[in-house]
Amino acid sequence: MESRKIGVLGAGQLGRMFVEAASRLNIEVHLLDVGPSAPAKQISSNPHHIDGKFSDADKISALARQVDVLTIEIEHVDAQQLQRVLDQGLVKHVHPLPSTIRLIQDKYAQKVHLTQHGLPVAEYMAVGPDERDPSLPASSAKEQAAGIQATGQEYGYPIMVKSRTQAYDGRGNFVVRDPSQAGQAVEALGGGSRGLYAEKWAPFEREVAVMVVRSSSGEVRAYPAVETVHKDSICHSVYAPLRHADASVEAKAREIAERAVATFGGAGVFGVELFLMKDGQLYINEIAPRPHNSGHYTIEATETSQYENHVRAILGLPLGGTRLKVGSAAMVNIIGLADSDEDPEAVTKTLAPVVRSLSIPGATTHLYGKAGCRRGRKMGHITVVGNSDAQVRQRLQPILDALDVATDTAKSPAHKLPKELTLAGVVDQPSVSEEAAAAAAAAAAAASKATKSAADFAHPQPLVGIIMGSDSDLGVMLPAAQILKRFNVPFELTIVSAHRTPDRMRDYARSAPSRGLRAIIAGAGGAAHLPGMVAAQTALPVIGVPVKGSTLDGVDSLHSIVQMPRGVPVASVAINNSTNAALLAVRILAAADSTYLKAMDDYMREMENEVLAKVDRLGHEGWDYQVKK
Amino acid sequence: MESRKIGVLGAGQLGRMFVEAASRLNIEVHLLDVGPSAPAKQISSNPHHIDGKFSDADKISALARQVDVLTIEIEHVDAQQLQRVLDQGLVKHVHPLPSTIRLIQDKYAQKVHLTQHGLPVAEYMAVGPDERDPSLPASSAKEQAAGIQATGQEYGYPIMVKSRTQAYDGRGNFVVRDPSQAGQAVEALGGGSRGLYAEKWAPFEREVAVMVVRSSSGEVRAYPAVETVHKDSICHSVYAPLRHADASVEAKAREIAERAVATFGGAGVFGVELFLMKDGQLYINEIAPRPHNSGHYTIEATETSQYENHVRAILGLPLGGTRLKVGSAAMVNIIGLADSDEDPEAVTKTLAPVVRSLSIPGATTHLYGKAGCRRGRKMGHITVVGNSDAQVRQRLQPILDALDVATDTAKSPAHKLPKELTLAGVVDQPSVSEEAAAAAAAAAAAASKATKSAADFAHPQPLVGIIMGSDSDLGVMLPAAQILKRFNVPFELTIVSAHRTPDRMRDYARSAPSRGLRAIIAGAGGAAHLPGMVAAQTALPVIGVPVKGSTLDGVDSLHSIVQMPRGVPVASVAINNSTNAALLAVRILAAADSTYLKAMDDYMREMENEVLAKVDRLGHEGWDYQVKK
Repeated sequence: MESRKIGVLGAGQLGRMFVEAASRLNIEVHLLDVGPSAPAKQISSNPHHIDGKFSDADKISALARQVDVLTIEIEHVDAQQLQRVLDQGLVKHVHPLPSTIRLIQDKYAQKVHLTQHGLPVAEYMAVGPDERDPSLPASSAKEQAAGIQATGQEYGYPIMVKSRTQAYDGRGNFVVRDPSQAGQAVEALGGGSRGLYAEKWAPFEREVAVMVVRSSSGEVRAYPAVETVHKDSICHSVYAPLRHADASVEAKAREIAERAVATFGGAGVFGVELFLMKDGQLYINEIAPRPHNSGHYTIEATETSQYENHVRAILGLPLGGTRLKVGSAAMVNIIGLADSDEDPEAVTKTLAPVVRSLSIPGATTHLYGKAGCRRGRKMGHITVVGNSDAQVRQRLQPILDALDVATDTAKSPAHKLPKELTLAGVVDQPSVSEEAAAAAAAAAAAASKATKSAADFAHPQPLVGIIMGSDSDLGVMLPAAQILKRFNVPFELTIVSAHRTPDRMRDYARSAPSRGLRAIIAGAGGAAHLPGMVAAQTALPVIGVPVKGSTLDGVDSLHSIVQMPRGVPVASVAINNSTNAALLAVRILAAADSTYLKAMDDYMREMENEVLAKVDRLGHEGWDYQVKK
Repeated sequence: MESRKIGVLGAGQLGRMFVEAASRLNIEVHLLDVGPSAPAKQISSNPHHIDGKFSDADKISALARQVDVLTIEIEHVDAQQLQRVLDQGLVKHVHPLPSTIRLIQDKYAQKVHLTQHGLPVAEYMAVGPDERDPSLPASSAKEQAAGIQATGQEYGYPIMVKSRTQAYDGRGNFVVRDPSQAGQAVEALGGGSRGLYAEKWAPFEREVAVMVVRSSSGEVRAYPAVETVHKDSICHSVYAPLRHADASVEAKAREIAERAVATFGGAGVFGVELFLMKDGQLYINEIAPRPHNSGHYTIEATETSQYENHVRAILGLPLGGTRLKVGSAAMVNIIGLADSDEDPEAVTKTLAPVVRSLSIPGATTHLYGKAGCRRGRKMGHITVVGNSDAQVRQRLQPILDALDVATDTAKSPAHKLPKELTLAGVVDQPSVSEEAAAAAAAAAAAASKATKSAADFAHPQPLVGIIMGSDSDLGVMLPAAQILKRFNVPFELTIVSAHRTPDRMRDYARSAPSRGLRAIIAGAGGAAHLPGMVAAQTALPVIGVPVKGSTLDGVDSLHSIVQMPRGVPVASVAINNSTNAALLAVRILAAADSTYLKAMDDYMREMENEVLAKVDRLGHEGWDYQVKK
């Protein structure tokens, strides 16, 4: 669309997904990386790609001369050379700015920058005298070890010692558990020649990431905050959006990420990784000045992908929407489980989860076209989307199971995968419908437990909450649970009393949307304040079930529940009729999900047939068949 | 992922989007088309592409030798040669089967085939004696003209005369309005040398299309039925899913399409185009044995795109999900408005809607990288997704407006586009938020009409319906409309009486989901049967507003609405409180749409602040401030 050309340093998987986005907009991309078939080069027949290391200063100059904008797919680049080609006028723009890249390359300088801008980071400390006073000569290994011990004294052990530069995927970190390990840490991290710093141990509850796109005019737009799960210090999986009992956490993460990215010069996408502490505090861990693994899911799940937004931002085009277009999404990385040259089955084992994903609705696979399979190498990823967290987790589970089997199998080169996890096992097999798969899973689950477990009434990703003031209401509310179970609606059931646990009620109501709930069924008798008081503290639909008491036949409960003041509605159903409350909850889900709509249609047809069967019986056996028995 | 290689005849835009899908799965594609930079070749650096016409038999053989599976991106190929390379064992599979391609190439044979399989097609008739009896020599132009006149006599005029072969985008069709035009039609369609046939005039109400993927084992899976809009016989835009007052139409279209595709041999994606008549009847118009313009929207809007499903089908892999993953989607084609060599602004004018789309959330542009802009050439397309039809139409409107302006401007080469529709106009401009855009649109709309029009209460794509038994209830129900308007919820308001218009009530309830409604608010007094009777005939949530009558203070209505039997719930709100009914409808939408959730949160905070202001006033002016006045 644009006559402007983009040059990219690096042509790995991030470059590949960037090129895909640029091609859709018909924008020419010139790539600098080694060899003719780097992942990104495979999907662009542009004859102007440059063969060479992206650290090669001359090649960078050559690339700069060919294009209008330079960008990067990795931050470990020669930022000085990027500044030079800009100063020499070889290229009009470099995004992000070389100064931003340099700042971010040095994780200590990055932390100082963030602190200076009032952004929350875990406590950190310089360990070499040269960091406190840059006019001093580079600190020696001995000085660094002493600095680590001084930090340990200050913070207590363990402390996390990190390389200032060249750190990624866990490389460049060392956990020092007592003063005697200080020298070991310096040695492991190449200290003496490389700067180090130390961080106070941050016992985070979860890791969070936020992608932010920054336009050349300084506008910043965050994508939803997501939860990231790391294994062996490498990103394993990502879940969007972030769920938390404190509704403010997701918004706070986005706000912090936007503020952080606003402090940097230049345009483009940034990945902000944060630690979420038990008390809801958020600390920035580090920032990547480029599209990021935690944002892969945006290709299938948001209005505009992180890659297209990077294209738009660095060309000065308007930014695209960053909202989720699906209810929920997850991403799992496909990481090499073995080396091709050691285990001839390395590729087959590594791709087992991909094979499994082909039969999962809503799963999309991206393979990066890497030259060989190596243990720990990122080979691809799978994104799973769905209407709800529960659906996405259910769809994801078989993929994670296949990954587990493959990981176990990869431990010994001799082991073979089960047939259904190899391509031969799926070719030409009709795929199973989601309903059939869910039914099979349910049957298997039922068979595996002899007795009802608590999990039956507490799905980990519930869409509907059933609450009541006391366990004396359980008998009346049980049919609601049975209906939700019948319709395969993930739900939780618990006791929340308006009058005896007002704080718990407040927390329950306030946290419901950010925990992923879509409707609340509240049963109450007598004064029956629970439904209305919950409705006053959540924006979700609340369904009230008037429970019949011993004196006023439930009319007291009914009037107390239904006669809500203008402004705060409760959806009331008939006295004691929790069946209808659950059916209403299913209809609420059906409003935006055709699967539930069809299930409700089927249910209604079934009811009709039951009555018609009684019509038949009456016709055949006579009007007095009940007396005749 | 697979070691199997795919060869494609043709490398235009369909091939390009196919290659994109194959690359994600790391599957090698070899393309046969003229030149090194055909659209699909641009996004694949595979060195094995073949330069040549895809009609060249030798090149087809060469391609066949290189790959494991051959497929097509256009049906006007040499099907005989495809059969030959298969028979000669040069390639293992050709998908779809050459016999299927040949059958579909001949639109008359296609119709005969469909009729033989009991599929509905508009009435048609051979016009040459050779079609009725293939042993006869090819019919002459004179015989064909006589045949057309005989058909006209049988069907009445106008009749549609069509070429049997080489017809697409309206080429190969001729409308004969009276017997004197028969000769003209034969001449225009190259008759004599080419076979012709005639169709009875089908005054269709709308055009519908269904993409169907067929696995090599014969499994068929339809995508949602969509509405297609043609201009000048070229696909202009597509709307998914198809909305219709008759809920069975969408399912029927899918079922017909699946049955039709099941009759063909070979695997792959097929596009089935249908006519939807006023009475809800559906006739197959024609079938394309390949990904299709009407399925472009699947890239952003469904679980697996038509292109990836074509890859999976022809490789014998499990088929991907075909369901919508968003609430609603639309696609508009970007078609060349002028020739580059006649009008230097041809590209700028043609891309004006694309420029506009960059500021629209949920809009994704695909440009095909065609060598030059020519009038009528397909240059790209834009897909718009959103939570609802109303949101998608609102997002699409500025793009269609830009297309209109550009089309007018293109009529004279001298005319220039307004600046905001050229790239220079958007570069470095911060994009406008959706809320601001909606507010500006609403303000403009309000300014342009002096008086309230009917459209205020009848949005063309409503999400909520407000109904009542009589206009005497209007006063009570009006606040519901005002609340929905305040929350920007598209709604309709009308009169439906359970007792006086039972048929209308039934139709209203049954058609609500397939018309796109997500909740119904029903007000009723006295016997108050309307909410419950509507709930009995739809799977959507129904909210009942008890209207206070003259005798029993509304308690009669309340009990009649709330005391529904087990199985059919109505969400009851307080007597006369239609405000709460509308707020409940907004909460139901909020359950699955974070925009409404946030709006409801804001509303609740505003209510809180209003009360707190009164607290303040009481504090400042004293407890008797109301009496003091």
